[in-house]
Amino acid sequence: MKWLRCMDGDVETWAILEDDVVETVDGTPCDGHARTGRRHALAGTRWRPLPRPSKILALWNNFGAAAAKNGWSRPAEPLWFLKAPSSLAGHGDPIPVPAGDVGRVAYEGELAIVIGRRARAIDASEAAAHVLGYACANDVTAIELLGRDPSFPQWCRAKGFDGFGAVGPVVETAFDPAGASVRTSVDGRVRQDYPLSDMFFPPHELVARLSRDVTLEPGDVILCGTSVGVLPMKPGARVEVTIDGIGTLSNVYGGGAAG
Amino acid sequence: MKWLRCMDGDVETWAILEDDVVETVDGTPCDGHARTGRRHALAGTRWRPLPRPSKILALWNNFGAAAAKNGWSRPAEPLWFLKAPSSLAGHGDPIPVPAGDVGRVAYEGELAIVIGRRARAIDASEAAAHVLGYACANDVTAIELLGRDPSFPQWCRAKGFDGFGAVGPVVETAFDPAGASVRTSVDGRVRQDYPLSDMFFPPHELVARLSRDVTLEPGDVILCGTSVGVLPMKPGARVEVTIDGIGTLSNVYGGGAAG
Repeated sequence: MKWLRCMDGDVETWAILEDDVVETVDGTPCDGHARTGRRHALAGTRWRPLPRPSKILALWNNFGAAAAKNGWSRPAEPLWFLKAPSSLAGHGDPIPVPAGDVGRVAYEGELAIVIGRRARAIDASEAAAHVLGYACANDVTAIELLGRDPSFPQWCRAKGFDGFGAVGPVVETAFDPAGASVRTSVDGRVRQDYPLSDMFFPPHELVARLSRDVTLEPGDVILCGTSVGVLPMKPGARVEVTIDGIGTLSNVYGGGAAG
Repeated sequence: MKWLRCMDGDVETWAILEDDVVETVDGTPCDGHARTGRRHALAGTRWRPLPRPSKILALWNNFGAAAAKNGWSRPAEPLWFLKAPSSLAGHGDPIPVPAGDVGRVAYEGELAIVIGRRARAIDASEAAAHVLGYACANDVTAIELLGRDPSFPQWCRAKGFDGFGAVGPVVETAFDPAGASVRTSVDGRVRQDYPLSDMFFPPHELVARLSRDVTLEPGDVILCGTSVGVLPMKPGARVEVTIDGIGTLSNVYGGGAAG
């Protein structure tokens, strides 16, 4: 099942996408819902971001190919940081260019896990029951700002600007990461195409391990990390992150104010 | 004015502390309030944590004495990370010992700024209008975990465990950091006593600069960083952070599950 957030008249709502038709629901995917019978064609959807999560956790160095290329060791445990919830953007939202001198800004196409049920110190075998589903993500990063101070890598700042966490277009509840891959294109040219099977810590393992560090709440997002092919974006660039079985998340860098 | 959160019968509420008397209010400090006339003595207060913020930002290397002692350069800009909102604890809450092997855990007594009005790219001269007030904080840190992986300092993880962000006991709206100091005691023995005038980036400057990185929301918390005197805690230790003009935040490390 594909969940999305959109406008229904003046009201923001959850909806279900089936065969290019969007049907709004009363309620939420986590707490129970009822279909309303109100349907519209996918093309007419006014997309909205997911409800703002309490936490966006994001992985560094979680793919073998990226580690090999960059000379990073395989980590003994998941290495993660937090993106500010105010960085969340939805499908179609512009990604604002930060004010001030932050240097070059890069896309990072990723798989996102969306938590459906509170998880505290669970085992990987229990993780499926705590995951609502999966989405595409663009973990936007001010790559020069990240290392500008040699004494302190500025992960949270470089990745936390408003609009720097694009997640969408839908949350697919039936997605199986095992055989899937992530493709990122910039203005139509494919720049990343990597298999999710290359993760050091696959999704259920991540949910379990991170739930021992912090209590995961419904709506929380885990970005699984990116692989090779990261490059800076020019203002005006359209970045699309596609995962077969989920869909394509599309955002323009520098297209205006955040949604 | 000193704001606090407490129970009023079965209901959690905002209240005002005056002369050791607590009076509950309808409403909130940010959106308007009315006194209820329901009063009780301070000693009978059943304390609650502040409402969970959307973000807890925390400073590294913001005090001259700590920089001098540790050989850190004066930073050109505020160096900050995020603590998970789920790490928030209130006055009197136990700080749980993390499960698993995280190594030694230290207290860090700090000044907390609590945001009262949304701030996006403001100037320091405007900051006062966006600050609700100030509180004491204990920015608890798993100091060995922080550097356990040589390739990636785990700031968010080492400081993000449930209960690792104690803030309280009250939010003082009239506090002036200029002449004040922070004292941290462990089981009654003073371990930190440093002046807030030693900050590289004082509170209004922090609010302004951080508001250019991320939109600050009402309730968001900025921890101003700590100075010298940080030491590990033993389970059972009572840590008290006192700032004259605000009060004393008291928590026991390892006292049970988080509130």
